[in-house]
Amino acid sequence: MAAAAILPELATQVVIPVAAAVGIAFSVLQWVLVSKVRLSPERRGEGGAGKSGPSDYLIEEEEGLNDHNIVAKCAEIQNAISEGATSFLFTEYKYVGLFMSIFAVLIFLFLGSVEGFSTKSQPCHYSKDKTCKPALANAIFSTIAFVLGAVTSLVSGFLGMKIATYANARTTLEARKGVGKAFITAFRAGAVMGFLLAASGLLVLYIAINLFGIYYGDDWEGLFEAITGYGLGGSSMALFGRVGGGIYTKAADVGADLVGKVERNIPEDDPRNPAVIADNVGDNVGDIAGMGSDLFGSYAESSCAALVVASISSFGINHEFTPMVYPLLVSSVGIIACLITTLFATDFFEIKAVSEIEPALKKQLIISTAIMTVGIALVSWLGLPYTFTIFNFGAQKTVQSWQLFLCVAVGLWAGLIIGFVTEYYTSNAYSPVQDVADSCRTGAATNVIFGLALGYKSVIIPIFAIAFSIFLSFSLAAMYGVAVAALGMLSTIATGLAIDAYGPISDNAGGIAEMAGMSHRIRERTDALDAAGNTTAAIGKGFAIGSAALVSLALFGAFVSRAAISTVDVLTPKVFIGLIVGAMLPYWFSAMTMKSVGSAALKMVEEVRRQFNTIPGLMEGTTKPDYATCVKISTDASIKEMIPPGALVMLTPLIVGIFFGVETLSGVLAGALVSGVQIAISASNTGGAWDNAKKYIEAGASDHARTLGPKGSDPHKAAVIGDTIGDPLKDTSGPSLNILIKLMAVESLVFAPFFATHGGILFKLF
Amino acid sequence: MAAAAILPELATQVVIPVAAAVGIAFSVLQWVLVSKVRLSPERRGEGGAGKSGPSDYLIEEEEGLNDHNIVAKCAEIQNAISEGATSFLFTEYKYVGLFMSIFAVLIFLFLGSVEGFSTKSQPCHYSKDKTCKPALANAIFSTIAFVLGAVTSLVSGFLGMKIATYANARTTLEARKGVGKAFITAFRAGAVMGFLLAASGLLVLYIAINLFGIYYGDDWEGLFEAITGYGLGGSSMALFGRVGGGIYTKAADVGADLVGKVERNIPEDDPRNPAVIADNVGDNVGDIAGMGSDLFGSYAESSCAALVVASISSFGINHEFTPMVYPLLVSSVGIIACLITTLFATDFFEIKAVSEIEPALKKQLIISTAIMTVGIALVSWLGLPYTFTIFNFGAQKTVQSWQLFLCVAVGLWAGLIIGFVTEYYTSNAYSPVQDVADSCRTGAATNVIFGLALGYKSVIIPIFAIAFSIFLSFSLAAMYGVAVAALGMLSTIATGLAIDAYGPISDNAGGIAEMAGMSHRIRERTDALDAAGNTTAAIGKGFAIGSAALVSLALFGAFVSRAAISTVDVLTPKVFIGLIVGAMLPYWFSAMTMKSVGSAALKMVEEVRRQFNTIPGLMEGTTKPDYATCVKISTDASIKEMIPPGALVMLTPLIVGIFFGVETLSGVLAGALVSGVQIAISASNTGGAWDNAKKYIEAGASDHARTLGPKGSDPHKAAVIGDTIGDPLKDTSGPSLNILIKLMAVESLVFAPFFATHGGILFKLF
Repeated sequence: MAAAAILPELATQVVIPVAAAVGIAFSVLQWVLVSKVRLSPERRGEGGAGKSGPSDYLIEEEEGLNDHNIVAKCAEIQNAISEGATSFLFTEYKYVGLFMSIFAVLIFLFLGSVEGFSTKSQPCHYSKDKTCKPALANAIFSTIAFVLGAVTSLVSGFLGMKIATYANARTTLEARKGVGKAFITAFRAGAVMGFLLAASGLLVLYIAINLFGIYYGDDWEGLFEAITGYGLGGSSMALFGRVGGGIYTKAADVGADLVGKVERNIPEDDPRNPAVIADNVGDNVGDIAGMGSDLFGSYAESSCAALVVASISSFGINHEFTPMVYPLLVSSVGIIACLITTLFATDFFEIKAVSEIEPALKKQLIISTAIMTVGIALVSWLGLPYTFTIFNFGAQKTVQSWQLFLCVAVGLWAGLIIGFVTEYYTSNAYSPVQDVADSCRTGAATNVIFGLALGYKSVIIPIFAIAFSIFLSFSLAAMYGVAVAALGMLSTIATGLAIDAYGPISDNAGGIAEMAGMSHRIRERTDALDAAGNTTAAIGKGFAIGSAALVSLALFGAFVSRAAISTVDVLTPKVFIGLIVGAMLPYWFSAMTMKSVGSAALKMVEEVRRQFNTIPGLMEGTTKPDYATCVKISTDASIKEMIPPGALVMLTPLIVGIFFGVETLSGVLAGALVSGVQIAISASNTGGAWDNAKKYIEAGASDHARTLGPKGSDPHKAAVIGDTIGDPLKDTSGPSLNILIKLMAVESLVFAPFFATHGGILFKLF
Repeated sequence: MAAAAILPELATQVVIPVAAAVGIAFSVLQWVLVSKVRLSPERRGEGGAGKSGPSDYLIEEEEGLNDHNIVAKCAEIQNAISEGATSFLFTEYKYVGLFMSIFAVLIFLFLGSVEGFSTKSQPCHYSKDKTCKPALANAIFSTIAFVLGAVTSLVSGFLGMKIATYANARTTLEARKGVGKAFITAFRAGAVMGFLLAASGLLVLYIAINLFGIYYGDDWEGLFEAITGYGLGGSSMALFGRVGGGIYTKAADVGADLVGKVERNIPEDDPRNPAVIADNVGDNVGDIAGMGSDLFGSYAESSCAALVVASISSFGINHEFTPMVYPLLVSSVGIIACLITTLFATDFFEIKAVSEIEPALKKQLIISTAIMTVGIALVSWLGLPYTFTIFNFGAQKTVQSWQLFLCVAVGLWAGLIIGFVTEYYTSNAYSPVQDVADSCRTGAATNVIFGLALGYKSVIIPIFAIAFSIFLSFSLAAMYGVAVAALGMLSTIATGLAIDAYGPISDNAGGIAEMAGMSHRIRERTDALDAAGNTTAAIGKGFAIGSAALVSLALFGAFVSRAAISTVDVLTPKVFIGLIVGAMLPYWFSAMTMKSVGSAALKMVEEVRRQFNTIPGLMEGTTKPDYATCVKISTDASIKEMIPPGALVMLTPLIVGIFFGVETLSGVLAGALVSGVQIAISASNTGGAWDNAKKYIEAGASDHARTLGPKGSDPHKAAVIGDTIGDPLKDTSGPSLNILIKLMAVESLVFAPFFATHGGILFKLF
């Protein structure tokens, strides 16, 4: 029955690292292209010959190109932002490092204790007739994989931030030459991050599998169980990155807006605002570093989920390497598909007008999905035997390679649908956001009511898309199908990240233009870039949430399988109380993070007010504000406030597993998943809609919009209130929730051997 | 093993109707006492001797007692409100009646088709060796029970509204004599409604069981299956009542506030505001009639859930009447317990100061719970055999009477805990609401952020309380335990309703005082009554939601049992897609209802603005506004807008059951339950907190509060925005959600025989 895959093992062992290497090389190339934009006037003679050399036909649009002061000022601001971000991340990593070290010790102790730290080999868990490595070895390798995942995630986030801060002033300077130039610089910088993360995530995973394999040998069951720690490490880091960064950025943003825009009536990013540097730092640590860690975590987890299920299926049992690492092959092809896609934005077409930006970004999604569909077909044909067997909860299922292709493809296309629905509900080109903007006519209250209703409504289609993907992929290939569907949704991650990172880079570019005192025209160009970025950021969040739902379900399935639970029956009290408490956790978590942003913002407001009131000449622009104190407030608040929500997520599976056992934990995972995904989607979209409703009024691009404006009108003020409320929803609590559901699932999976043997002490006692 | 209950059948047959009769008599007595307050000055000579006669020691506080004009004006306003409410309810009932008639036909057709409309007797579903009545009989009697439930619910809501509008002007007039007098009038009116509903609900159910029993004879399985239709009828009516009434009241309220308070700076309930009558009508059709129907529905459903489970347990099989109707005995004792409790508020103590109002209401909850605990012990001892057997999903469980006592008691006390947690989060006597008020300092945005966070946080303890109740009661007595726990939570419904109804009556009394141009002092008294009512309304919603969760679970369990599903395994794709889609439904529903309120409020705002702008002399008070048009806007909007959300809830179980089958439907029910309960609690509490944060600033009773005020200050304006946003959350979407989860469960149970035989055609086809 089991014909081998067409691609031999050796070829596979070449294809994966080569694809990763190509991704990294492409990333470096983009970096080189970005660095062609000269930031220091002194180094003038160095280059300038590159790609952008002969495009002098746009020269008539250039302005201030020879103004050395502006360049110096931009460099100085960029420096301040970069330093602030670096210093915050180091502080954050110090605390998180401590937490992670303790957690690593816990992993080792808990998993080691499963067989009482015995060094004797054991019969395998799934194939009882074979012999597997001792539980102690799994404890050691899981811990190593955990650390590896955490470090990779940390480096990903940090490099992303460095790239973004490297590119933002360069985008500002390119904006002098026209919107097209600026777009390409920002987009290339995003691509650097996207390809670097996707490729290095793949490479580290590939190397780890091969290195671990030296010890594990034929024990693939143990090998891929240990590899799961990689996903846990990646997601744990991502959680702190998202929450800490999210609190940082929104405390600064809300604080800066409430005093600057509302009370003092000065524009956004005005250098007189003491919180302005903190605000710009926040974009880089929250939206860039946090999101980078987040999507890396999703990628790592979906790969691990697929691998662990595959390892106990016919690939694993028959030791067929190529189909075993099918998930990595999909990611490899994904990198190449995204590479081709990127060229469509940077080389094949050129942006000449503002109105072309958003379509260009949207085309990226469509093109990458289309190319990737072919790629998946190819890799499914070459990398899988025509027929194979999946083991799932004791039952076995015969799957054909084209069926697995369908699983990956349904995930991929469901992602696109979620992306477009998100766009429909958050872009001000469509009626939902325009209705929200219109409701500002009667004040902030109706704006908030309409915005909340919009967010609630926006979950409907994505949930149906997710449900359909789950049903189809599960029916075709059980939990393995769900895992590869998640992988399919994330297979175009390089493009997704490039688009995502593009947004905050443009946002920062605008901030730098304002702070450097550049002309209104430059600001208008960066604003146009930023508006498109807002929508794509919402799309990116849609992807992240959708894939998180699929990943969590796959991990949940693997957990149930590993914990040897036969059914998760809602109508047993142990499971049901887990389900209802699990559904409550996203609310608890959101309450914490939103309150944190609120409190930190209040402190920021007081500090900014204090500076305006006590520093003479600040409003007149003759004295510089004390930026450092605001940076410190954001830093302190986020470090202090990220611990409780982080602990809630990290400790819940441990507490439930130890005291209530695996059935209740299953309930908690299912409850958190089905409830969290709704809040995450609605929070992100509500926030995105309010932001763009405000921008719609400010831009005044239609007759309808002009009846609501201009800036400073009552409807505009109401829109600003909505935007401020949306900030923590869309950038702190919403996107953190997808980490919550993934992380609890992967953590349960990693600790499953411990829970299965020692868990549920409370029920055992009574 | 099965010793009989101590109470013989004959005694039971006497106790239940007598308790119901006592409840009704007590209700009539309270009505008589309320009616002693003379509303028409002409009828002066008639009475005045009653209870309130000799309390002349408060005479020094009286004012305007002999002003016939004021009395006449109050009577006139009361008339207008009563007429508006009656006319709206008749319109509503006309449309709902049509919908319900169609639904009744559907019930008959669907259930009749189970055995192809055969008139032959069948083997019983649970006891295959016995013979039961034909499916056609069940179809007929289910339809009759459905209509009976709907009509009882309709009459309950209507009478509640009549009583409330009868009492509100009387409360205003009594406020002239002091706050204690006004309190007693409002509270007595609430008690009229509470006792009337609790007693008539019990009586109708008791009579129906006995009448249906004439036909069914020994077939108790069929009898109580048919009786379930009573719960469905009650809840369907309640859904439309809550949604329609909720949209009506909040469209008027939001519309009136946005123009009156915010734009024109006139006080709430000012007679110059064209929407003021609609606003006051809204309180009566939404908060009174809607809530009356809602709690009646909960009561009917929890009784039906317990009865249907009992009918297939040893009581039903052995035909032991007394333990069989144990749920009705609990309700009977509940009426007596609440009767004693009421005397503590009206006769044993007297309210002399404003600060005594809230404690007096809270004491009602504690006293009724304490007395009821004894009552449950008594009824469990007398009404149950010492040991009996519960059949549950094929398994059987031996239960002792004291264990069932624990099940009812845990529900009762969990209700109290939920009540007090709700109070903590929504009363401005505690730090959560004060923090929200404090956040108004930095504007509406932080107010909203803090309010949302508060609502999210407020779900934590209630969910743990619900989870604990479910775990304990399920462990002790399986689904029957959960059903009686729900019944326990609702056993003090008469007191709960009295407290609940008290709120809107006081609110209206204040409105009438303002409109009749009475002195500021009167208004202050009614405001104090109203503030206490706000908190108790939130507590009432907490009870309603908590009991809805338990009821739904019990109904869900009965459904699964009836549909012959062995397990509801989350890890089957059919169930999981149901779970995630079910968890989405509350969002879809909330999106509809909130958008409806928003749109209707916008129309109201335009109309009110139009009247202020075009009617000369309106602002000066020389011309009367056109109240009727505003009433019409609210009526039209709510009639039109209540259909889509109503249809969503009513049709979802049908569509899912018919096309996807019972497994997916189980998933939908579980998902909607665990997700809906969270949104319902958080929405109600967020809204309640904003309302009371605003009142906290307005009252200025502490140093802290005074730094935020006075009325019209910036923090106060921010608080008003929060209050307006909270209106649809706490009075439309939040409280409707508990009907959503209950109704879908009871509907699934009623249609279970049909789904089990003919459902899931989509999966059967593929």
